[in-house]
Amino acid sequence: MASNAWPHLAGRIEGGEHILPIRVYFEDTDFSGVVYHGAFVRFLERGRSDFIRLLGIGHDGLARGEHGERLAFAVRRLALDFTAPARIDEVVEVRTRLARLTGVRVALRQSVHRAAETLVAADVEVVLVDGRNRLARLPAAVRRRFEAGADD
Amino acid sequence: MASNAWPHLAGRIEGGEHILPIRVYFEDTDFSGVVYHGAFVRFLERGRSDFIRLLGIGHDGLARGEHGERLAFAVRRLALDFTAPARIDEVVEVRTRLARLTGVRVALRQSVHRAAETLVAADVEVVLVDGRNRLARLPAAVRRRFEAGADD
Amino acid sequence: MASNAWPHLAGRIEGGEHILPIRVYFEDTDFSGVVYHGAFVRFLERGRSDFIRLLGIGHDGLARGEHGERLAFAVRRLALDFTAPARIDEVVEVRTRLARLTGVRVALRQSVHRAAETLVAADVEVVLVDGRNRLARLPAAVRRRFEAGADD
Amino acid sequence: MASNAWPHLAGRIEGGEHILPIRVYFEDTDFSGVVYHGAFVRFLERGRSDFIRLLGIGHDGLARGEHGERLAFAVRRLALDFTAPARIDEVVEVRTRLARLTGVRVALRQSVHRAAETLVAADVEVVLVDGRNRLARLPAAVRRRFEAGADD
Repeated sequence: MASNAWPHLAGRIEGGEHILPIRVYFEDTDFSGVVYHGAFVRFLERGRSDFIRLLGIGHDGLARGEHGERLAFAVRRLALDFTAPARIDEVVEVRTRLARLTGVRVALRQSVHRAAETLVAADVEVVLVDGRNRLARLPAAVRRRFEAGADD
Repeated sequence: MASNAWPHLAGRIEGGEHILPIRVYFEDTDFSGVVYHGAFVRFLERGRSDFIRLLGIGHDGLARGEHGERLAFAVRRLALDFTAPARIDEVVEVRTRLARLTGVRVALRQSVHRAAETLVAADVEVVLVDGRNRLARLPAAVRRRFEAGADD
Repeated sequence: MASNAWPHLAGRIEGGEHILPIRVYFEDTDFSGVVYHGAFVRFLERGRSDFIRLLGIGHDGLARGEHGERLAFAVRRLALDFTAPARIDEVVEVRTRLARLTGVRVALRQSVHRAAETLVAADVEVVLVDGRNRLARLPAAVRRRFEAGADD
Repeated sequence: MASNAWPHLAGRIEGGEHILPIRVYFEDTDFSGVVYHGAFVRFLERGRSDFIRLLGIGHDGLARGEHGERLAFAVRRLALDFTAPARIDEVVEVRTRLARLTGVRVALRQSVHRAAETLVAADVEVVLVDGRNRLARLPAAVRRRFEAGADD
């Protein structure tokens, strides 16, 4: 119900790319006056979470064992380039796109923008791990949803 | 521009109460499986920020000296009751309402809900401080906007 | 091993009061130039965690079911007064003391200081919850350790 | 005074490498049961901050214009490999070492360990920016301190 009341809360997918708007709050800034670099890492995770949400893959469903066993996404690699700062009260957009899919690994290309300007560019590799934190193969249903999203 | 593209990003005011939807992400949870209590403190601040944003008072404008000197909101008191947990992927709503306004102090009543259930109730007092962190009187324009918002 | 190498990492208990030093880093500050109010909420939780650690009660042991079932501490009430700001690079101390103990509830009195100055004062009530987030009675061993700590 | 009372709070430099112990608290974990990947980004920043602190370069001094103008460190690139998880209550160590120094850029090699096991490896490039967020040359005194630290 709540989600219907706020239709764009999870952003949207356009041309295979997911776009999520994020407001900069107090919590995201540091004493230097701009957004703390670690806050962008959180912003990117929100973008990935809402991307997979719109693909029909939810953290909650994975954790409940929807695909056979308890699974959770874990980040394996993260490479970030910071090119311009963001400030309190601004709205930035996180863009997320599938870059490559293997049997166990999802590579995503992400970026953070303010209007036309790129603030951060990121390459991220995520995997699924089971309840004991061991690498799991991507369930076929999860793979298909990523592939379908890339074609949207 | 970005803000127009995402009309409800700052929530809305209904009957003097501001409502902001917030998605629970990885960053908000802890190993106990539910939302970390400190994350609700951040959620409440987002609610207050967007409430004053819709009232026409921005952190950025205050910091740039829009009202004469460099000003920033600071929290003086915070009292929280936690009654029910929230979980990953859920959408909660932060509700914010003016409780009392003095020459230097804004008292707000806030709560966090999931559908009809109250998860957290909070009483918060905020003040404005100048560039040296000294208490400042609320500018008349700021007071008027709070009073107008309470009547909406 | 690592813990032996850094003897004071969990602070110390003196006269029934636990003292934990905390350094202010970038992540703890916001664009207003001082420590974000929500960071103090995290600092207080670190103080409580190390207090119970030195009392011989560990989050990890509780979660593994050391006392019969899977248990975790959860915060029920939190009341904070913020009286002075802290800044980047400063060292503050979190002081934690048992205020009251009932069958299900631990009330703690906490504060954050910089040298002789009090920055934040807090009253905190915590409870234990089981794996389904239901209130659990404090195991006798947990009660005894809190009582012993109060007499140190 | 407080810093003298807690001698190892900023870690130590051994053979040109800075070592900082960090305790895992509630705030650092997520619902998957282990440390949130973004928490490691904060841990690495703490390691860098204490490394430069022990080299005699403080964020506070830089911000106050100790080297002529207001300066702050900003992260330009961050590449992280996550190889093993950390859990609540554990003590991890952040290791930081100078990799390369140019006129404007400090490249650092960092890692997070639990006893002999590497959990995260990171390459980080930081720069100094002035009050308007423009790239600044490293002051000679700052360069000398980095070079001296590398030889320790």
